[in-house]
Amino acid sequence: MNNEKYAQISLEDLRQFEYDCFRGMGIPEDDAQICADVLHEADRRGIDSHGVGRLFMYYARVRRGQQTPETRITIERDSGAIARLNAHNGMGQPVSHKAMQMAIDKAKKYGIGMVTVGESNHYGIAGYYSLMASKQGCIGINGTNARPSIAPTWSVEPMLGTNPLTIAFPTDYAPTGGHWFADHATSITQRGKIEWYARLHKPAVKGWVINSKGENPIDTEQILKDMLEKKAALTPLGGSGEDLGGYKGYNYALFVEVMSAALSSANFLQKCLGFRIEGDKKVFEPYRLGHFFIAIDIEHFEDLETFKHTTGDILRACANAKLQPGADHIFVAGEKEYKTEIERIKTGVPLSEATQLQLLQMVDEMHLDSSKYNIDWTVEYRGSVDSQGW
Amino acid sequence: MNNEKYAQISLEDLRQFEYDCFRGMGIPEDDAQICADVLHEADRRGIDSHGVGRLFMYYARVRRGQQTPETRITIERDSGAIARLNAHNGMGQPVSHKAMQMAIDKAKKYGIGMVTVGESNHYGIAGYYSLMASKQGCIGINGTNARPSIAPTWSVEPMLGTNPLTIAFPTDYAPTGGHWFADHATSITQRGKIEWYARLHKPAVKGWVINSKGENPIDTEQILKDMLEKKAALTPLGGSGEDLGGYKGYNYALFVEVMSAALSSANFLQKCLGFRIEGDKKVFEPYRLGHFFIAIDIEHFEDLETFKHTTGDILRACANAKLQPGADHIFVAGEKEYKTEIERIKTGVPLSEATQLQLLQMVDEMHLDSSKYNIDWTVEYRGSVDSQGW
Repeated sequence: MNNEKYAQISLEDLRQFEYDCFRGMGIPEDDAQICADVLHEADRRGIDSHGVGRLFMYYARVRRGQQTPETRITIERDSGAIARLNAHNGMGQPVSHKAMQMAIDKAKKYGIGMVTVGESNHYGIAGYYSLMASKQGCIGINGTNARPSIAPTWSVEPMLGTNPLTIAFPTDYAPTGGHWFADHATSITQRGKIEWYARLHKPAVKGWVINSKGENPIDTEQILKDMLEKKAALTPLGGSGEDLGGYKGYNYALFVEVMSAALSSANFLQKCLGFRIEGDKKVFEPYRLGHFFIAIDIEHFEDLETFKHTTGDILRACANAKLQPGADHIFVAGEKEYKTEIERIKTGVPLSEATQLQLLQMVDEMHLDSSKYNIDWTVEYRGSVDSQGW
Repeated sequence: MNNEKYAQISLEDLRQFEYDCFRGMGIPEDDAQICADVLHEADRRGIDSHGVGRLFMYYARVRRGQQTPETRITIERDSGAIARLNAHNGMGQPVSHKAMQMAIDKAKKYGIGMVTVGESNHYGIAGYYSLMASKQGCIGINGTNARPSIAPTWSVEPMLGTNPLTIAFPTDYAPTGGHWFADHATSITQRGKIEWYARLHKPAVKGWVINSKGENPIDTEQILKDMLEKKAALTPLGGSGEDLGGYKGYNYALFVEVMSAALSSANFLQKCLGFRIEGDKKVFEPYRLGHFFIAIDIEHFEDLETFKHTTGDILRACANAKLQPGADHIFVAGEKEYKTEIERIKTGVPLSEATQLQLLQMVDEMHLDSSKYNIDWTVEYRGSVDSQGW
């Protein structure tokens, strides 16, 4: 661990703070509630790459006019069990919330529903939307494309986004809190984890990254520099080359890219960069991301309680399988997150120094009353932080 | 390479041979056509773990009464965009063909369709059914559970099947022959590949397998022995532990298990073993596998030609990305298989000595006229081969 001093804030206060920030950015009330909810879900479950630490990213993008705070949603297609929406460069969260709810409503009617979204932006944790479906008795599946990060097998160039393929379903297996919940990228890891390791002065795991020389570097500081200059890329799940199945991760990332972009005329691959270089100037552009949302209504196939019990039996059997020597527990997806949730309801959420500086800047620039939230700040406001990388 | 002498057979002759064998097992004409088609697709595309080398497996299972040659299909649910079928322990191929065609028909009507199958058996290459959808202007997705092989993360016990999650879609990217085609297990590798390496006296790649000591062994002979005795298991995509994302592969395998088993009351995990031990006797039992099939009609979302062009652009960009030093080509899914197809149309299919011995046994026992097929056998019939492992 490094010497960073964390501030604690209760979940309720943090949610209110996030809501106020979104309102301060000019996001309408209902949309700001959804945006805060999505961040809150990540904060609760300890998915800290996508919680309060991302709030400033939305602020930076809205402030520089890269995306609009108001989200005008148009329905481009709506036919039977499917629909296709356009977010017109607004916030990714409200359009995604609407899209998944439409998919769920269609699933309740037809058994399965699918909705795609074009011209959108970062939508927070993908898992939020799959959980929406799970809480309404459905299997929820969704994904999005994103900034180019993953190199295809035998390439060293960042092309595909980290492209999460995210799934949730209801289960009676208690350690999950009622929902199996797999929320992860189709790369081995993501930039946020490498940044975290760099702050702790820890090396990366060999294989997370491939650089332009074809090596798998572990120096996290160097990796972060090289990634910015396109001299390093993330590897797909399965790693570099084909020996450990890297082409499978590459294929799943590509599938998510196609489902997100090719059914709703969204940007894809390197068009999702969010900026262009003019001379020596970085000119920000809309991301125009795409997402897809699928809901499968369980009751159309099987009694819901039977399904929960069957999936519970499957998860119990996995959890009780023979342990690897030295290991003490077999997890199922969503279990760690549920454990964190129970803990954070009691202890609140830790805010890193970097996150606090971002929050303090938003407080200052949007004239919020920070005394409202009971934060024991461990740093003092030192002025604007660099937002170019967001 | 080892010193094995391969026989060559033309694709047409091989398909006829396979059809005749399926007929000889007592499979009705239409179903035998489908069974032969599925094998043929694997033979054409060089997916040799699932081509003619699997024919004897179906023969062994039908002959010992583990599954029935006639496939009575009942529709348990049929509502809107979904249906649920039961194969009553018949052949996996005809029921899966019917299920995917139903999903496609529903997709043409509602935009998306999904059909599950319970009480089924090995259905051949998963990719066949996704390709059916792709050929009809849909994105095809399907999967199945299977004999327990994969150990969950932090376990060493085979629990999950190799559980393919298989996808195809149409594209104008010429090197694929018109279809992006990702047909693979959610484990890093599969038993068939380890058997192949053992025949060539090659070591396994470190990480493919975990044994009960928690090691990643590479001695292929020993691995095969240990796998039979449940002392070794396949690792999920991402490998052992969590460092390289093994929990993601475990989660995707688990998702396929749930989609296959929990919506159609199929067997799951270790119930899919296909036998039980009574005293020192192996008593064969039905597998009662489950499958799922999803079709997404592209025209509901986007003009088909536009979609093919967009996916073509995505694949072209990936194929033209910066090469890893030492690599000379970036593949996309389905490209290698299409190349093999073009080659095999000219050269036919190689039959290993082991496969020939199986074919000769079926010729003998089902009284087929092998002179009909123009095979330059490189071995002579030596009587029954061991079928206990199938």
